[in-house]
Amino acid sequence: MLEDLAKRAKNASYQLSVATTAEKNNALEAIRRLLIEQEPDILAANQRDITEGRQQGLSDALIDRLLLTPDRLAGICQDIERLVAMSDPIGEEYQGRQLENGLFLKKRTVPLGVIGVIYEARPNVTIDIACLALKTGNAAILRGGKETIHSNKKLVAIIAEALQSVGMNPEAVQLIGDPDRAYIYQLLKLDKYVDMIIPRGGQTLQQVCVENSTIPVITGGIGICHLYVDESADFDKAIAVISNAKVQRPSVCNALDTLLIHQSIAATFLPRLVSELIQQGVTLKGCMQSTEIASKISLAGADDFDTEWLSLTLGIKIVSELQDAVEHIRLHSTAHSDGILTQCLNAAEQFVARVNSAAVYVNASTRFTDGSQFGLGAEVAVSTQKLHARGPMGLEALTTYKWIGQGDGLIRN
Amino acid sequence: MLEDLAKRAKNASYQLSVATTAEKNNALEAIRRLLIEQEPDILAANQRDITEGRQQGLSDALIDRLLLTPDRLAGICQDIERLVAMSDPIGEEYQGRQLENGLFLKKRTVPLGVIGVIYEARPNVTIDIACLALKTGNAAILRGGKETIHSNKKLVAIIAEALQSVGMNPEAVQLIGDPDRAYIYQLLKLDKYVDMIIPRGGQTLQQVCVENSTIPVITGGIGICHLYVDESADFDKAIAVISNAKVQRPSVCNALDTLLIHQSIAATFLPRLVSELIQQGVTLKGCMQSTEIASKISLAGADDFDTEWLSLTLGIKIVSELQDAVEHIRLHSTAHSDGILTQCLNAAEQFVARVNSAAVYVNASTRFTDGSQFGLGAEVAVSTQKLHARGPMGLEALTTYKWIGQGDGLIRN
Repeated sequence: MLEDLAKRAKNASYQLSVATTAEKNNALEAIRRLLIEQEPDILAANQRDITEGRQQGLSDALIDRLLLTPDRLAGICQDIERLVAMSDPIGEEYQGRQLENGLFLKKRTVPLGVIGVIYEARPNVTIDIACLALKTGNAAILRGGKETIHSNKKLVAIIAEALQSVGMNPEAVQLIGDPDRAYIYQLLKLDKYVDMIIPRGGQTLQQVCVENSTIPVITGGIGICHLYVDESADFDKAIAVISNAKVQRPSVCNALDTLLIHQSIAATFLPRLVSELIQQGVTLKGCMQSTEIASKISLAGADDFDTEWLSLTLGIKIVSELQDAVEHIRLHSTAHSDGILTQCLNAAEQFVARVNSAAVYVNASTRFTDGSQFGLGAEVAVSTQKLHARGPMGLEALTTYKWIGQGDGLIRN
Repeated sequence: MLEDLAKRAKNASYQLSVATTAEKNNALEAIRRLLIEQEPDILAANQRDITEGRQQGLSDALIDRLLLTPDRLAGICQDIERLVAMSDPIGEEYQGRQLENGLFLKKRTVPLGVIGVIYEARPNVTIDIACLALKTGNAAILRGGKETIHSNKKLVAIIAEALQSVGMNPEAVQLIGDPDRAYIYQLLKLDKYVDMIIPRGGQTLQQVCVENSTIPVITGGIGICHLYVDESADFDKAIAVISNAKVQRPSVCNALDTLLIHQSIAATFLPRLVSELIQQGVTLKGCMQSTEIASKISLAGADDFDTEWLSLTLGIKIVSELQDAVEHIRLHSTAHSDGILTQCLNAAEQFVARVNSAAVYVNASTRFTDGSQFGLGAEVAVSTQKLHARGPMGLEALTTYKWIGQGDGLIRN
């Protein structure tokens, strides 16, 4: 049954792959229009999810993530407008040239085909992913959380209706409507039809995908993020950046988790930093040496430097020098976002060269690692692996290329 | 034990990732020099492989693949010279700009880290892969076939000696010296240390890697390749291209496997083609309709259109129109190399747009799909999947990028 669904998505992807930019934008506009027209039905479907969620005792925070409101729907519609306005990455030709053997060779950007996305909670992701896929000529198979099943069914029905209304294959966006987790395992084996899997969720989901998928998986979205305060750092600026990285939105993957401090400034810098962060409600867990400098820091446990806090907690470690910071990051970072705070050009360059994370910062907050902050427009996910795409994945990450070779009866010698 | 080996490779990769182009080229030059100096020892080690291979009854063709000769060694040394002369893709910065939020953001090309390559037979691959990895600042873990174990041990010892002689970490190139296949399965789980797996071998090896690896795998090197003869094709040129694609080197992945012919020209084109190909020793297996036109064509069996022949056999199928050819290719091609022979611009464009293979040809032989033919210099593998790299993989395919963001105490609003 799931194979059949995937086959239909694959078939739809063939039509999509040759759709013009105007046709794809038409489809997006039609989705936006129907979202506005059918707002009452969408909110009613969402209300069923909310009611069932409350019955099942979901936390208020989670209920809030599930919730669609007229304002949030308007935001989704604005995102679609922005996406329509973005340039279409498909069909770009580059590196064209005639080779010594006579062949005219070029590369052309093409869609991947079918993208499988497994995600949780927020129903806006359903529209986001579907629209990003359509804009890049890809079909999509969506597997949302069971908490938003009513919302997702309604939203995908709207997408199908919109596609149909503009003469496109309504099967281009498929929803796995059965919340049974067994279907995730089945999906991961459908390499004949699905070209890429993006798990947007916690460590367990990522691990399930990596271990079971025969389809290439883009892992990401888990950030154990570091800032290293070099001995030459400007204290005021450093405190501002650290506070922003930790406090502005602690529940997300690009928030700061561990602060590394050069030993030569620890005694002067730490007290100032601690008093600022404590005021902002941050709990501090540090190495032995740091607790001896600032009594408000409690001693960190064995796993604390391997924890993505997602809350107002910060790990603190005093390091002997830059290379010590680099080595800590290599061991404990998820290679999402790590940065240095320094006034020294050489230290900045050493750090940037040696820390091989998706995003490396100099005197800037880790909170910038984000598709819209990076100017990519929308974001499919934040990759923390090295193949295909790193960091925030925009439209380009949903494309691949083909080589096109032309001759006039050309043979190889 | 294997984990320890991988850990050493990872450690070496850190040094390599910050090595200058001159340092990396020095290392390559040192390898070349030692290959020349130690030629007698290399040939002696290779002779042990040959002797054992004969004792185990390996075919002459396979023995020839294992064999190193002074000429072949000289060829390997020439390849290293060419690689030294190529530009280093690492450290390139691009898309640099200041964003609206104030962040200076750019991308920089960086090494992947550690590359695991599993391959068979030919010992020149050992040097090829190691040198490509070193040129791009990557460490490598090599698992060659047991038939070349003595040659590979000697070659990797030379690489270590060369690295040491120029002050680089000799552990950057690791050989899994135990032929036990269990180590392949172990390697595939070392995602903590290895960033990419390239299986260079048959369907079974590829499948083992895709099913068992928790590391991203680049599959490829298996080509069920098609040419479609459109009704407007120039017969003479078409026959020349088909003959080249099938006959020039039938044992490789980019050789032609199936020919599709537009029904309107089958009766005139097929007899001329068949007489030419029969003369060249090709065995023809075709659809019912084709056998009725040319009696030298025997009826194809059920699996014949899903077979990579790797020999002088060709499948032939008459199709009703271009879209019929496209659909046959979608079903049966491995997305390696497929082409159209036509004089019609519109047919060429339709075919190129609809066939989403790694390499798509117009009036040219499928035999061009090759790193050196494509002007990439060397080739690590030919990818037939869509993520990261497609088709012939040159130096660029061994790189990734990091985002570098710079501010002056910049925070996110």
